[in-house]
Amino acid sequence: MDKFMQAAIEEAQKGLAEGGIPIGSVIVHNNKIIGRGHNRRVQSGSPILHGEMDAFENAGRQSAQTYRESVIYTTLSPCSMCSGAIILYGIGKVIVGENYTFLGDEALLIARGVSVEVLQNQQCIHLMQSFIDTHPQLWNEDIGV
Amino acid sequence: MDKFMQAAIEEAQKGLAEGGIPIGSVIVHNNKIIGRGHNRRVQSGSPILHGEMDAFENAGRQSAQTYRESVIYTTLSPCSMCSGAIILYGIGKVIVGENYTFLGDEALLIARGVSVEVLQNQQCIHLMQSFIDTHPQLWNEDIGV
Repeated sequence: MDKFMQAAIEEAQKGLAEGGIPIGSVIVHNNKIIGRGHNRRVQSGSPILHGEMDAFENAGRQSAQTYRESVIYTTLSPCSMCSGAIILYGIGKVIVGENYTFLGDEALLIARGVSVEVLQNQQCIHLMQSFIDTHPQLWNEDIGV
Repeated sequence: MDKFMQAAIEEAQKGLAEGGIPIGSVIVHNNKIIGRGHNRRVQSGSPILHGEMDAFENAGRQSAQTYRESVIYTTLSPCSMCSGAIILYGIGKVIVGENYTFLGDEALLIARGVSVEVLQNQQCIHLMQSFIDTHPQLWNEDIGV
């Protein structure tokens, strides 16, 4: 598998091991990870630290050019908030682990010119499906339902 | 002036006093502020803590119903990221201090059924205009330019 999606999955697994929602993400610039993160709703009581947002936060302040040359990998289809962050910073490409368990705002990303590639990776699907089955309320909270 | 926009302006002024970008926000539920915040790019080296995001973060984990019944006040028109967060959580109404110095993704908010009211408040305009004039590079960084 792509080593960057593998790194995003490792972030998701780290989140799960911490008792959190298993979604991970990495931001890649020039073939190097500049930010990695995972959902921290449970761990930090945070409504904004989705996996992608945590990766942005951990990448720190970057130039507009760096963002524009970057690719974001995420184990799950990005919600409206994370899609909005991707659009704000002009990230050109999003590699999505799966959109089978949850379809985020991919249509908005595409409408704004962002390239979206969905892998339908079985490991990503299994991570989320198991979590949603066992923690439906927590999952709903994470997507504002 | 509306006491909640006043509270958002106070957050913006707090941010400015800290050496930060002067944008503030409060989230109001049942006529009570449940979260307040201001832009923390400079103070925390954060690319995601815009004023509105900081208010969401400080409000902590809330139920979907609470979000749906809430109004968010922000001194400046919300960017794509903050608009995405507002859409994710189903906030029904956004009161915007001004969109004269920066027009965010209000069109997206409206397209998704969010009510947007723009006050064109002179204090909000002055805060941002002065800041943009003196810190154009920092401001551009904040909006991914």
